[in-house]
Amino acid sequence: MRITVINPNTTESMTELIAESAQAAAAPGTVINGRTPSMGPASIESHYDEALSVPGVLQVIAQDPAADAFVLACFGDPGLDAARELATVPVLGIAEAAMKAATLLGRSFSVVTTVGRTVGRAWDLTRIYGLERQCAGIHACEIPVLALEQDPEHSYRTILASAAQALESDGSDVIVLGCAGMADLPSRLATKLGVPVIDGVAAATVLAEGLVRLGIRPSDHDELAPPPPKTYTGLLHDFGI
Amino acid sequence: MRITVINPNTTESMTELIAESAQAAAAPGTVINGRTPSMGPASIESHYDEALSVPGVLQVIAQDPAADAFVLACFGDPGLDAARELATVPVLGIAEAAMKAATLLGRSFSVVTTVGRTVGRAWDLTRIYGLERQCAGIHACEIPVLALEQDPEHSYRTILASAAQALESDGSDVIVLGCAGMADLPSRLATKLGVPVIDGVAAATVLAEGLVRLGIRPSDHDELAPPPPKTYTGLLHDFGI
Amino acid sequence: MRITVINPNTTESMTELIAESAQAAAAPGTVINGRTPSMGPASIESHYDEALSVPGVLQVIAQDPAADAFVLACFGDPGLDAARELATVPVLGIAEAAMKAATLLGRSFSVVTTVGRTVGRAWDLTRIYGLERQCAGIHACEIPVLALEQDPEHSYRTILASAAQALESDGSDVIVLGCAGMADLPSRLATKLGVPVIDGVAAATVLAEGLVRLGIRPSDHDELAPPPPKTYTGLLHDFGI
Amino acid sequence: MRITVINPNTTESMTELIAESAQAAAAPGTVINGRTPSMGPASIESHYDEALSVPGVLQVIAQDPAADAFVLACFGDPGLDAARELATVPVLGIAEAAMKAATLLGRSFSVVTTVGRTVGRAWDLTRIYGLERQCAGIHACEIPVLALEQDPEHSYRTILASAAQALESDGSDVIVLGCAGMADLPSRLATKLGVPVIDGVAAATVLAEGLVRLGIRPSDHDELAPPPPKTYTGLLHDFGI
Amino acid sequence: MRITVINPNTTESMTELIAESAQAAAAPGTVINGRTPSMGPASIESHYDEALSVPGVLQVIAQDPAADAFVLACFGDPGLDAARELATVPVLGIAEAAMKAATLLGRSFSVVTTVGRTVGRAWDLTRIYGLERQCAGIHACEIPVLALEQDPEHSYRTILASAAQALESDGSDVIVLGCAGMADLPSRLATKLGVPVIDGVAAATVLAEGLVRLGIRPSDHDELAPPPPKTYTGLLHDFGI
Amino acid sequence: MRITVINPNTTESMTELIAESAQAAAAPGTVINGRTPSMGPASIESHYDEALSVPGVLQVIAQDPAADAFVLACFGDPGLDAARELATVPVLGIAEAAMKAATLLGRSFSVVTTVGRTVGRAWDLTRIYGLERQCAGIHACEIPVLALEQDPEHSYRTILASAAQALESDGSDVIVLGCAGMADLPSRLATKLGVPVIDGVAAATVLAEGLVRLGIRPSDHDELAPPPPKTYTGLLHDFGI
Repeated sequence: MRITVINPNTTESMTELIAESAQAAAAPGTVINGRTPSMGPASIESHYDEALSVPGVLQVIAQDPAADAFVLACFGDPGLDAARELATVPVLGIAEAAMKAATLLGRSFSVVTTVGRTVGRAWDLTRIYGLERQCAGIHACEIPVLALEQDPEHSYRTILASAAQALESDGSDVIVLGCAGMADLPSRLATKLGVPVIDGVAAATVLAEGLVRLGIRPSDHDELAPPPPKTYTGLLHDFGI
Repeated sequence: MRITVINPNTTESMTELIAESAQAAAAPGTVINGRTPSMGPASIESHYDEALSVPGVLQVIAQDPAADAFVLACFGDPGLDAARELATVPVLGIAEAAMKAATLLGRSFSVVTTVGRTVGRAWDLTRIYGLERQCAGIHACEIPVLALEQDPEHSYRTILASAAQALESDGSDVIVLGCAGMADLPSRLATKLGVPVIDGVAAATVLAEGLVRLGIRPSDHDELAPPPPKTYTGLLHDFGI
Repeated sequence: MRITVINPNTTESMTELIAESAQAAAAPGTVINGRTPSMGPASIESHYDEALSVPGVLQVIAQDPAADAFVLACFGDPGLDAARELATVPVLGIAEAAMKAATLLGRSFSVVTTVGRTVGRAWDLTRIYGLERQCAGIHACEIPVLALEQDPEHSYRTILASAAQALESDGSDVIVLGCAGMADLPSRLATKLGVPVIDGVAAATVLAEGLVRLGIRPSDHDELAPPPPKTYTGLLHDFGI
Repeated sequence: MRITVINPNTTESMTELIAESAQAAAAPGTVINGRTPSMGPASIESHYDEALSVPGVLQVIAQDPAADAFVLACFGDPGLDAARELATVPVLGIAEAAMKAATLLGRSFSVVTTVGRTVGRAWDLTRIYGLERQCAGIHACEIPVLALEQDPEHSYRTILASAAQALESDGSDVIVLGCAGMADLPSRLATKLGVPVIDGVAAATVLAEGLVRLGIRPSDHDELAPPPPKTYTGLLHDFGI
Repeated sequence: MRITVINPNTTESMTELIAESAQAAAAPGTVINGRTPSMGPASIESHYDEALSVPGVLQVIAQDPAADAFVLACFGDPGLDAARELATVPVLGIAEAAMKAATLLGRSFSVVTTVGRTVGRAWDLTRIYGLERQCAGIHACEIPVLALEQDPEHSYRTILASAAQALESDGSDVIVLGCAGMADLPSRLATKLGVPVIDGVAAATVLAEGLVRLGIRPSDHDELAPPPPKTYTGLLHDFGI
Repeated sequence: MRITVINPNTTESMTELIAESAQAAAAPGTVINGRTPSMGPASIESHYDEALSVPGVLQVIAQDPAADAFVLACFGDPGLDAARELATVPVLGIAEAAMKAATLLGRSFSVVTTVGRTVGRAWDLTRIYGLERQCAGIHACEIPVLALEQDPEHSYRTILASAAQALESDGSDVIVLGCAGMADLPSRLATKLGVPVIDGVAAATVLAEGLVRLGIRPSDHDELAPPPPKTYTGLLHDFGI
């Protein structure tokens, strides 16, 4: 089984971290391909960045017909609907995967994410996925995405403190990590916090494996059918189908 | 990995069907144990039956400390919260698993279930799981649970017709089968209907495998902590902890 | 008129307290029968206890065909749907009765309950009954159910403090007591707090009287029709119909 | 116990019908006072009529300090919040009472009302009371309010047909009558339809009796405190407090 | 274009303030007519006041057939549905206008209003308008309506403090002023707070201008059709149509 | 006042139609600039097209610092959050504008749109804007976007039929046109249908004028602050800030 894990930003070192986390979660025999888009932002910290990460994500999907499933490794699940139209295999966003997995492991969850301005998008996603009630809180630890790996020990301690406070204030019983750049932290945090800690990259990887094993292709009925052929112009000329 | 699949009713032939379906969906190396409770109703077709299936389900869990995960193979997810308190490993209901898997494979789903009087319970579950909006309709084909295997060809054709009509009237793009007794039908139906068809036994099995592989124990924080010790009396004396 | 008030746990002294509260609320001429199930937990403080209280509750109902209405005197409303299928007369849970009565007496209510791990179930009930918005908060005073009557003065003071704080923090204007074991406290608390304080046993009793006086039998249409006949096996053999 | 039942419109014959229905539902010893406001519309069939019925309703309440409870006998529950501020005893609207009683007697209810233009208001009320989900449909039989008593047999047959169709199309199991002018019909309809049929006048009467018997005054905390004293001018001069 | 701005209370000085604010917001050429009803409360600070302000509002509308639009300048939007039936031109309440405008200018808004007992009504309006989620908080600064203009500097400072705290505690990014009597404050507050501050009188005025310019008459289909002719009696005799 | 109306697709003739509609709705003195992006799809009929229209939209905004407001003239409101971050003046999507205007003119609205596969996105938008309940139905007339202007008479008749049926089946009282390419139809349709018909281009134009006249800049607090500076690579290199 081949699962392509797409880092929607263009920072290679983060792609490597993500691919390692996915591989660690995958079953023996599953091949993980980490992919960095050829275009887009170095990190995703605004609606602007997120919107502009989507063309690169879609290009990766279009160029990888052999994948059995795709994972979008950014907690904003950028372009998920478009990706599902384009792909003929399952596509999982890490926010959707992490939050749905959390609901299987506890009564409610808190999200610990990077910067405050992404909190609104995360709440939007809870509503799209029907999890607004089960999400007890979303907390920013105010570490920029690319700073996560610059001082890993500081990141760990800050995230730990934020998660501990979230459990206390929200009355929740699961922690969801709100950034693919935190993919190396869950077990260390879980030991300390005494509750499940879910990284979306790992969660999306095992869910993708499960869907592939079930042998069920995603629906291509009506709304998720392949996009109708269309002329594209200018810089995006090559996205025409 | 050992997954115990519990048939909450006491009909052995149905347990066998369920265990086979789970095994077919499981990864190589996963051991599926099908279990029939020692007490309870021959089939579950009312709130009364469902409530009275729970003691038997809980007994199976209490007596099986070696399982890595449990699957409750009845679409009412009977006793799920109690089971999660009692177990220290993941417990998945097939309704929750099937409906959450459906949301990864399409925009909305329709449920095709057995008898009309169970439709209300299925809607209740969509609300508990936050999937009320994504569930586009719940349709009874009016075949009693134990009749499903008596005339399989008739069951297949009736369910096929009900599913086809559900897709049309609901505008949905995925079918969820609303009874563990339909576990042998998905691929045949999917071929005919042209949309994903999800059986909860298979869905719960692969989700359980994924959670076990992640190595994350479910939360035992507060509400899902083990039940406090208590004296039980009368017929249920042995359920005291 | 005969109203059977069922204490879903098996502690006789609590049944007596409950029956007295119901009798005090009832109109002259109403006969209150307090009943303790023959099986089940000594108190209900977990999903596990609640699920295992249901068989005893259903047995009481099945054995009491002369009752004009039933009251389930546990704030989790255990087995309410199953009880409504089985009974041909109104069945009221004290959580449903107390919360609906509260909405007739104020703009929003706060619940003061026993132990923290039952708070989730109480929120679930607000959603089932459509009262999630009107319920402004649910607060545990961390007194175990059976400890309520061991030191009544301490219980009273703790509940008073919890209720006062709930009114302040929630901005609500009615208090609902979240345990049948608090049935002797409302008037004393109300005097002190200056807002309505509702005990579910009393509320359910007067609502049951009202429904009986209206002469309206509950619906037995479709979903709430009597459970279909079924073989039961093992310990629960006698629950077969 | 004295319950004042207010007909918010100024048609005396309708007040008589309403008072009779309330008396028929009341316990022995309860005195029902039917009241017609001194001002306002002959019937209520628009938002305009409803708004202009409120001054008359409030005047009746202000002039009746001896009542133990009030019932507002119009399915729009006109001025309910204002009435609750003004009164120091329970005030029940018949829509709220009928719909909450319906949820104690079945899984979902359908409303059969008079004219189509009142359907929107009835849906608004379901949302205010948290019953939007439990209300499966609202159906107008297109009989104007005052025509109900002109040809009672025709009204009965039209309402019966509308209710039968509502049960079929909505999949509901209780009928709520959406006009105080239908207060004489429930038992006849119930016999024919085989489901509970609820008239709000009767429902509000027994609920009011229950609240009075509990001895619980409604909250006068904050929002429902008596209106602050204020100068009123012009035609409404006498409403100043 | 002629827009009639109705002050639902009977305090002339407040009508003047409101009319000035409307004129300041209006386009060149728009004529603003400020109107004080001939009857009703001196200010609106309870459900009682609000209900009794409606007849005066409706009378103004009935007597002004030349208006191109009406603005109801009280944050409770009193009698809005009735006014829309009666008028054949657009009618805007200032709460609806302010809150909808706020959603065009930020992600969520906080309301700063006068007295605490009106907070419940404001929340009710957010639900009616579908803005419950976007409204992050409603805060009373406990200045009675008519006191706002008695010590304007004190009012300004109190409202500023309340708004600053609301932004902090709610995490919102727009302030909505919850009383027509605050219509002179927005720009001064906005400069200080650094976020948009919306007065409903100005917002309703420009929205009304826009609707008039579109040339679209409001719907008079079914529910919002003119009220059916009806006899009115007593004090309200002249409201008969 | 200068309002830039952006056609998110790259078809010039459609930009012209849109600009004309905006100009027709605008007040005297308002300058409308119609803009076609330099890159992207010829029409927007899928999530894929919509996602790939966003870079072109953002480029237009970045290159037009003199605009007083922007209108995004595609009913999917593509990239609205990102556009609001980037712009320092109001940005209105035509779906949001049309639907919010509809709620000022009637009790509920129906949307008539182009192709069926865009219906899901339109429902998503109703939820984001809090209008799910007020939207009574979304109907596709199955005319592709660019075919609208090829046979205008056929388009008109098809849309008329679809709208008439929507009013009937949905019980709504306002029609919202779900495509910028229908901007020339509202008055003709309204005359025939007897209810308000709203084109989003016109609605967004007058709302934008109103916000500009209020002199209120949109919030740039926290989530809608300008995007943080960031390196962009590849094809999208120039989007770096």
